[in-house]
Amino acid sequence: MFCVRVCSGLVGFRTATCVRTLHSLSGITVAQVSLSLKTKSLSFPLSVMSLKKNLFFFVCQGTRDYNPKQMAIREKVFNTIISCFKRHGAETIDTPVFELKETLTGKYGEDSKLIYDLKDQGGELLSLRYDLTVPFARYLAMNKITNIKRYHIAKVYRRDNPAMTRGRYREFYQCDFDIAGQYDAMIPDAECLKIVHEILSELDLGDFRIKVNDRRILDGMFAVCGVPDDKFRTICSTVDKLDKMPWEDVKKEMVNEKGLSEEAADQIGEYVSMQGGMDLAERLLQDHKMSQSKQACAGLSDIKLLFSFLQLFQVTDKVVFDLSLARGLDYYTGIIYEAVLTQAGVAAVSNEAQNGANAEESVSVGSVAGGGRYDGLVGMFDPKGRKVPCVGVSIGIERIFSIMEQKAEVMSEKVRTTEVQVMVASAQKNLLEERLRLVTELWNAGIKAEVMYKKNPKLLSQLQHCEESGIPLVAILGEQELKDGVVKLRVVATREEIDIARTDLTSEIRRRTSEA
Amino acid sequence: MFCVRVCSGLVGFRTATCVRTLHSLSGITVAQVSLSLKTKSLSFPLSVMSLKKNLFFFVCQGTRDYNPKQMAIREKVFNTIISCFKRHGAETIDTPVFELKETLTGKYGEDSKLIYDLKDQGGELLSLRYDLTVPFARYLAMNKITNIKRYHIAKVYRRDNPAMTRGRYREFYQCDFDIAGQYDAMIPDAECLKIVHEILSELDLGDFRIKVNDRRILDGMFAVCGVPDDKFRTICSTVDKLDKMPWEDVKKEMVNEKGLSEEAADQIGEYVSMQGGMDLAERLLQDHKMSQSKQACAGLSDIKLLFSFLQLFQVTDKVVFDLSLARGLDYYTGIIYEAVLTQAGVAAVSNEAQNGANAEESVSVGSVAGGGRYDGLVGMFDPKGRKVPCVGVSIGIERIFSIMEQKAEVMSEKVRTTEVQVMVASAQKNLLEERLRLVTELWNAGIKAEVMYKKNPKLLSQLQHCEESGIPLVAILGEQELKDGVVKLRVVATREEIDIARTDLTSEIRRRTSEA
Repeated sequence: MFCVRVCSGLVGFRTATCVRTLHSLSGITVAQVSLSLKTKSLSFPLSVMSLKKNLFFFVCQGTRDYNPKQMAIREKVFNTIISCFKRHGAETIDTPVFELKETLTGKYGEDSKLIYDLKDQGGELLSLRYDLTVPFARYLAMNKITNIKRYHIAKVYRRDNPAMTRGRYREFYQCDFDIAGQYDAMIPDAECLKIVHEILSELDLGDFRIKVNDRRILDGMFAVCGVPDDKFRTICSTVDKLDKMPWEDVKKEMVNEKGLSEEAADQIGEYVSMQGGMDLAERLLQDHKMSQSKQACAGLSDIKLLFSFLQLFQVTDKVVFDLSLARGLDYYTGIIYEAVLTQAGVAAVSNEAQNGANAEESVSVGSVAGGGRYDGLVGMFDPKGRKVPCVGVSIGIERIFSIMEQKAEVMSEKVRTTEVQVMVASAQKNLLEERLRLVTELWNAGIKAEVMYKKNPKLLSQLQHCEESGIPLVAILGEQELKDGVVKLRVVATREEIDIARTDLTSEIRRRTSEA
Repeated sequence: MFCVRVCSGLVGFRTATCVRTLHSLSGITVAQVSLSLKTKSLSFPLSVMSLKKNLFFFVCQGTRDYNPKQMAIREKVFNTIISCFKRHGAETIDTPVFELKETLTGKYGEDSKLIYDLKDQGGELLSLRYDLTVPFARYLAMNKITNIKRYHIAKVYRRDNPAMTRGRYREFYQCDFDIAGQYDAMIPDAECLKIVHEILSELDLGDFRIKVNDRRILDGMFAVCGVPDDKFRTICSTVDKLDKMPWEDVKKEMVNEKGLSEEAADQIGEYVSMQGGMDLAERLLQDHKMSQSKQACAGLSDIKLLFSFLQLFQVTDKVVFDLSLARGLDYYTGIIYEAVLTQAGVAAVSNEAQNGANAEESVSVGSVAGGGRYDGLVGMFDPKGRKVPCVGVSIGIERIFSIMEQKAEVMSEKVRTTEVQVMVASAQKNLLEERLRLVTELWNAGIKAEVMYKKNPKLLSQLQHCEESGIPLVAILGEQELKDGVVKLRVVATREEIDIARTDLTSEIRRRTSEA
């Protein structure tokens, strides 16, 4: 029997012996399940257990289906982001979901272990893309493009530990905007921050901050604090943990694990506690130690220049020069930035999590955008090493989806999953043909319309469908209406009904459903 | 050196020893290369050879990047298709790009060998999705959904022999529309055909035909022609080749390879040459042989009913009842259909191919949409085998992209890749700040605007950029304009220039660039 063969792809709760597999559970409502699983403690709240009476089908651990409601929210978020990218004159490209394994090799440092490889089934060795930046650099080099402003919205893949309540998945969208080309300093860099500011403001996720720093300032700081050259990257990785760990622990890691002197660590500690604006850059340019590093001074001057452009772009209210910002990836060479949501946006999340079962996983949504300048990456793909300077930003869209979904839930917002304007219905029997004829007229006139796929549906069930899916109008046909050449137009919300001449129907529907 | 490591991912033309690898070439212009490669004869036209002076980067065989121009065309096609799906009231869902290997097992018959598997890196065994229908069925069963009208647009993966000029790739988009639910016969089935008709008409790809048949008619026909029960599926696969092979060859395969009697084959041959409309279904219901099969009669009655709905939907002009239509996939249980472009649409393709180098590959674009009824698939995923009847259609979007791209090329159509309305420019030096201030005003007012990332760009290069990217307006700032509180608005096409009060600028730009 077929069923037997398929069942090996299922695991029932009652028969599940391996606790770990439960993480990949994705039952009737993926969101619910993931919200109520305490993924770290490996215990399962009763609410989940009782849900599972039957066998289950899996989707892969750390991935999820999007249901129509989630898709409606996703479409709204994408529209906001794409509008912004287009407003700034960006083109878009697409690249394959897999790249040759070699293309990804040596670009991500330690994170390379998170790359998904395809099975060797003959032919090339392939890997799923890890981000959109490396494929972009490969694309530029391959096509010898030296300047472009492009956005790319697509899924990327990481074999990471999923934390779905915080919007961390193994398959997730990235929304990247990058400017490639040799331009005058800090103008494209400032535009990237302007874009982050516009998108986060429009999405209305609560207050946010955009932290900026510069890799040259970090390197200069490490140099003047006495960090040996070969420890810059590893100490930088440790500094990057400051948003998750207190300074004491970061210092411990520097001294105990990475072998830095206590004195050097303390000096770093002083600098990385500094936050400010253009004034801080100014002050550090005068700092007796920092000013000894040419690199740091170049970075600090650029921060000043950046802030002057940000003032013109009217976005300095949210931007902070923060010396503790380090960012993980190796390929950054200049300015770096990261946007974080502050209290307001996060409140909705933990609220919602408490409605589920456990709030532990939902403390903070954290970073929702990040990026920086990477002037060396394209050159890695060019046979002659020709460089193309690039700066870009990636919007952490999954976290934003999580917040928007949870917001919609908390506020019991009615999310429409279709745009249907009118339902063609009848109260009497044997009018299927007349309903099909009318819905054809409407479709052909570009009206979004539905009809029930039944010969003789009850009027009540037709009206109920409208209520459920938020369809605002019903066009009702009966013997009398047909005789009179009219259609009874019913407004679902008010139950008001009026007869409209059949010839005026489409314009009347359009008038009543135009968004304005 | 880094370069050395990366170079293993490159193959130079001069050093390439393996002819096969050249198929995966995807150089400066993927389209060009793929158009001029004779993939079957394994020879390389000079035009390609001379293109390759340097080392090359690969994308995987049978995949491609989309450049901004291709993306603009793609967006246009998607918008047409999505509008149609929405007009018919469809919701949308999304599923992960990989499914558990088990989910795909046993669904595709012989084609299973074309499934891409992921490497076993610990955890679940995963495969890239092969189509959107099986994930849809898995989604319905997993979420116990018994009725939904949904569309899903996403990429699917097949380790097939690519034929890129005919739009056959290893990574390609599918645009699926399906109606799941227990409804009265043939109403949703007819709506699927209405949708194909609307989409192909709107995309303006030239004339087309939609062939319909029914698996029950085929099976009934096989039975009354004396095909043994256990040979139905394999004989059906042979019939499916009739669009690529003449009847003589198909018959040979039936008799010589599949061991059918010559007499049975001849009887089949008579039936599969039949084409018509409702009248043909009527006639076959009276046919002394065909009428002996209950199954065939059920199918024929439904074809009659289908045509009566198609008449109401006003689409019978393109629909043909064609007994030779078989379709490959195992899971169809009722009505099946396939849309093919007839001459007009295909002409553009071979034209363009001849501009490349070899037309051999580009004879016919063939099928651009297909689908049918599959009432058993969801039940395969339900632990209790509960069935959810489904009918759907898949639009073969890559072939449509190919045609649209080649059409744009042949007609030297100017395809805009951005929607920028205005370029903020200046003729004088030292006005960077003023330009940034003005472009900020425009962005904040929702105008799509660009500014050059240079301190002192030449006016000519600013105007040239507008010409190249089709930006219709230039807002020019100078000392005098600043003093007067105006902006000089230049119409790129006519070179007309007028001074506009700065306060009126956004409304003036909107007025001049509104599409109407």
